[in-house]
Amino acid sequence: MNSRTDTPVTVIGLGLMGRALAGAFLKAGHPTTVWNRTPAKAGPLVDRGARPAPTVGEAIRASSLTIICVTDYQAVYELLGADETELDGTTLINLTSGDSAQARQAARWAEQRGARYLDGAVMAVPPAIGTPEAVILHSGPQPDFDAHRPALDALGTVTYLGADHGLASLYDVAGLAMMWSMLNAWLQGTALLGTAGVDAVTFAPFARQLAAVVADWLPGYAEQIDRGSFPAEVSALETDVRAMSHLIEESEAVGVNAELPKLIKAMADRSIAAGHGGEQYPVLIEEFRTPRND
Amino acid sequence: MNSRTDTPVTVIGLGLMGRALAGAFLKAGHPTTVWNRTPAKAGPLVDRGARPAPTVGEAIRASSLTIICVTDYQAVYELLGADETELDGTTLINLTSGDSAQARQAARWAEQRGARYLDGAVMAVPPAIGTPEAVILHSGPQPDFDAHRPALDALGTVTYLGADHGLASLYDVAGLAMMWSMLNAWLQGTALLGTAGVDAVTFAPFARQLAAVVADWLPGYAEQIDRGSFPAEVSALETDVRAMSHLIEESEAVGVNAELPKLIKAMADRSIAAGHGGEQYPVLIEEFRTPRND
Repeated sequence: MNSRTDTPVTVIGLGLMGRALAGAFLKAGHPTTVWNRTPAKAGPLVDRGARPAPTVGEAIRASSLTIICVTDYQAVYELLGADETELDGTTLINLTSGDSAQARQAARWAEQRGARYLDGAVMAVPPAIGTPEAVILHSGPQPDFDAHRPALDALGTVTYLGADHGLASLYDVAGLAMMWSMLNAWLQGTALLGTAGVDAVTFAPFARQLAAVVADWLPGYAEQIDRGSFPAEVSALETDVRAMSHLIEESEAVGVNAELPKLIKAMADRSIAAGHGGEQYPVLIEEFRTPRND
Repeated sequence: MNSRTDTPVTVIGLGLMGRALAGAFLKAGHPTTVWNRTPAKAGPLVDRGARPAPTVGEAIRASSLTIICVTDYQAVYELLGADETELDGTTLINLTSGDSAQARQAARWAEQRGARYLDGAVMAVPPAIGTPEAVILHSGPQPDFDAHRPALDALGTVTYLGADHGLASLYDVAGLAMMWSMLNAWLQGTALLGTAGVDAVTFAPFARQLAAVVADWLPGYAEQIDRGSFPAEVSALETDVRAMSHLIEESEAVGVNAELPKLIKAMADRSIAAGHGGEQYPVLIEEFRTPRND
């Protein structure tokens, strides 16, 4: 066993995800202490060599690194806020689902109690934990991430985003938006083509290739956003909306759902109404930055 | 000059796109005949060697292949339907923007007049024509596509989709939906991260990489759709909607637009209400296949 895998780690919360995290640490050879409100859930992990701790405080004391993954942030405060729980000097990584404000608040709370604190987000389902497909995002002080990275590598592809504890949550939801939107657009296309008898497997490679093309545009479009300048190098928004009308009309004509096409056009129409018809698509960032109550 | 580039071709309609198409044929060495309602637009092409035809009929007679790219399908009928215009034996490729029903109707109309007819869609802006980045979709009888493919290769990456003349239009709008949805989701993420001071160029590589991951799922998900079976191998829809709520709440909390997140969740909610909460994401195809009036 090398120094990478003999570091003791603790996992608090043994739901589906917590069990997967503890299992990945065990598989990599880490002495792994576990705690769960319902101790029975630790059983299979204990069979694999995990050490069950009788209290949260003892679980935390067993390792310099504790991963906590529970139902919500309220549960984090209840478990770690008990009188006997000593956080001073320990490093906590909180993988509990929550938003960026909750992450920042939890960081202040933990740091006031002497803990080093990183917030994280797991962009993976439990069975993927321990494989490179599991992307786990971290934000908080970089030295604390760097110190424990060798252990964290057992969990998947671990990524450090920045010192702001809210970043893991923000990147997480931003990534999910990307995922669902791509799937939805592909489903829209699959539904459209399905009306002409085209199988989903026939359309999928076309959609996949197009996704790769569009993905390659993002860095260049990002520069336009950071500059706040959107010259119509490729196409102007007022030209794009004519094709958006085609998309809506075609969807309605063949009898598939048109809500996604209509939202696409509604946002572009608003941007044109705001005077951006002669600019390029990424100028829509201004619409996405603006809340709308409807 | 080899057989590929000495084939005469005709381009009818010299708007931005028509001029780009004729220019690409000229550049590849094809004897190129052009016609436009306003003859002056042919000037720069004639300077480069194009032959201006005095009438549409003479333009069509000059080549065995005619590309027509005009404002709309009505203009196609007006130009090609004139008494003196002889279509018998010629091959028409109509790159005019329209929907699948218009394409099928135009095919019947042209074939009744003895023409071979392919419908097409240009997935590119005019400056890209003549480069591999310009994807041009074709649908109609495959022998007619194959016969003219060597000439069409001058225009970009030409693709044949199938015998149904409506396919080019359907793939076109399906591709556009994919493009705009990806860009919108990326803008949503960029707006979210922007509230934490993260530059668009910092987020773009993350989004790009995620897009590649999601694109790789499509062929497998497509098989589920074609089978009509959506076992929750990775995650169930009822789990996904909790993360969708996070996306909405985070968007609202940091003060960015939440319309796209809300549409994502609304469609998933409806699928769950229809009894699919225990199934996997692509089961949403049933929502996308169903028109909704709201």
